[in-house]
Amino acid sequence: MSEIDIVVSEVGPRDGLQSIARTMPTEAKTRWIAALAGAGLPEIEVGSFVHPGRLPQMADTAEIVRAASALPGVTILALVPNLKGAERAIAAGTPKLTVPVSASRLHSQSNVGMSPEQAVEGVARMCALRDALPADRRPGIEVGLSTAFGCTLEGPVDEAWVIRLAEMAARAGADSVGLSDTTGSGNPAQVRRLFGALRRALGDRAGGGHFHNTRGQGLANVVAALEAGVTTFDASQGGLGGCPYAPGATGNIVTEDLVFLLEAMGLRTGIDLDRLIAARAIIAAALPSEPLYGHVPEAGLPKGFRTAGPHRSAA
Amino acid sequence: MSEIDIVVSEVGPRDGLQSIARTMPTEAKTRWIAALAGAGLPEIEVGSFVHPGRLPQMADTAEIVRAASALPGVTILALVPNLKGAERAIAAGTPKLTVPVSASRLHSQSNVGMSPEQAVEGVARMCALRDALPADRRPGIEVGLSTAFGCTLEGPVDEAWVIRLAEMAARAGADSVGLSDTTGSGNPAQVRRLFGALRRALGDRAGGGHFHNTRGQGLANVVAALEAGVTTFDASQGGLGGCPYAPGATGNIVTEDLVFLLEAMGLRTGIDLDRLIAARAIIAAALPSEPLYGHVPEAGLPKGFRTAGPHRSAA
Repeated sequence: MSEIDIVVSEVGPRDGLQSIARTMPTEAKTRWIAALAGAGLPEIEVGSFVHPGRLPQMADTAEIVRAASALPGVTILALVPNLKGAERAIAAGTPKLTVPVSASRLHSQSNVGMSPEQAVEGVARMCALRDALPADRRPGIEVGLSTAFGCTLEGPVDEAWVIRLAEMAARAGADSVGLSDTTGSGNPAQVRRLFGALRRALGDRAGGGHFHNTRGQGLANVVAALEAGVTTFDASQGGLGGCPYAPGATGNIVTEDLVFLLEAMGLRTGIDLDRLIAARAIIAAALPSEPLYGHVPEAGLPKGFRTAGPHRSAA
Repeated sequence: MSEIDIVVSEVGPRDGLQSIARTMPTEAKTRWIAALAGAGLPEIEVGSFVHPGRLPQMADTAEIVRAASALPGVTILALVPNLKGAERAIAAGTPKLTVPVSASRLHSQSNVGMSPEQAVEGVARMCALRDALPADRRPGIEVGLSTAFGCTLEGPVDEAWVIRLAEMAARAGADSVGLSDTTGSGNPAQVRRLFGALRRALGDRAGGGHFHNTRGQGLANVVAALEAGVTTFDASQGGLGGCPYAPGATGNIVTEDLVFLLEAMGLRTGIDLDRLIAARAIIAAALPSEPLYGHVPEAGLPKGFRTAGPHRSAA
């Protein structure tokens, strides 16, 4: 694997697919994930161990995790909303768990039926579960603070509280704590400020950025986060996604456009843009008529465009 | 008029309308421009003194300039491609002329039928024409270097050449020289570098940024330009626009999304976002079925959103 500067974490198979009514067949999901790994994506969030009655689109997550974990050179993540989900994720051998903790009390209640403090207690219990495992079977645990930049239900969220909550999550045992603009409310000045404060508070355990493009500000926020030293960004192929519990919160930033941004800036992602764009065909075939977004796939690369470095799929 | 931090220059009536096949009726144009001025836009580029046989959509520019120049508190610009255009613009009483000079030789030839050096000689003649006028009738003259960040025909454009060309245009007498990403090829690292070099070369005569959103990077490039000290940005309401002579170059950044970005960052634009969004109805009525873009008009403002400052329309 060649060196990369920025980790692009593909969340389409989780954040994208959970937000649409139809369910992508398991066979298509595994082919899509294999294509993403083949394009050089270093991390893929493949599903959610939420109760299958709540999100039937995610009911096959254990099977998907098992298939995806066999892919070489890629870290497979799954979302876990609670301790029960963590138990299922660990039983399936999930290499890395991502746990949402809402900074907004109203969003926390409606999304996971808990207060933020209760959600952090849940993180502590998951970490205890992890620590009781043999060393070679312990998954990574990252926390993502949703609605960290504002909430459709509550409005602005206090920035000092967001950082305190991040510290609580780190003390609970999370390997890293990232910040999510679940509702696309954030702006670059705020992103620079909050990620700067996060790094001062957590040091190397300061995690990545998850930006929704609700108001078209996603990549602008990435530029600000890069300046604050953020090195991991979530994105969704074709801009699939959103949050079914946050009204008005539409899709993630588009992976294809993010990879173009980073490579054009001279930051190596290890991703082969042509192979990444080719993987859209799998979504289009499995979910016909589902809208796919992205400017770069439509416009193509600029004449004479050079990537920042070799892609991992060639290594 | 209250203080503003950033000048948003609306180019939809020129860059937007010249790129679509249909012609907006003169009466609708003047109503749209009045609505934009009423929303607090400090600058509006209302048309182009190009040969009417070439762009019949712009044939009424003299009439539009006369009507728009009566609006209070707004600077009215028109594009002039050559000396003949400048003569017509001055005869119509245009307060400020904007002159495109292509950095790419191939684009320059196909766009205005001249080399970049010939285009700069044209700027010198326009400035001589201006300087021969009585002091109270002299228009401002700004130059915009198109394809400064890359060209669909030529590929990458040498950065040192772009800065030399900017110096030539300033020596020719332009009040300011800005940089245009005509083809949406630019990235934030390049934008920071080029606008930094422009400011070092031209000082206060370094002009604004004109970014097309072809690859979805427009607002990301604005964030980088802000860091380089740029204080004027072109944008097009509803993302109307493009360049009919640069294949694959789609519309400008969306004014509504740009104003949201700036105000959310605490930068005062003097623009009333609600009145700005309301002005879309005039385009929709005059050009039914013409696609209008923009995330903020669709998603609305975040709950509890506060603008950076009062809007000029209330002053």
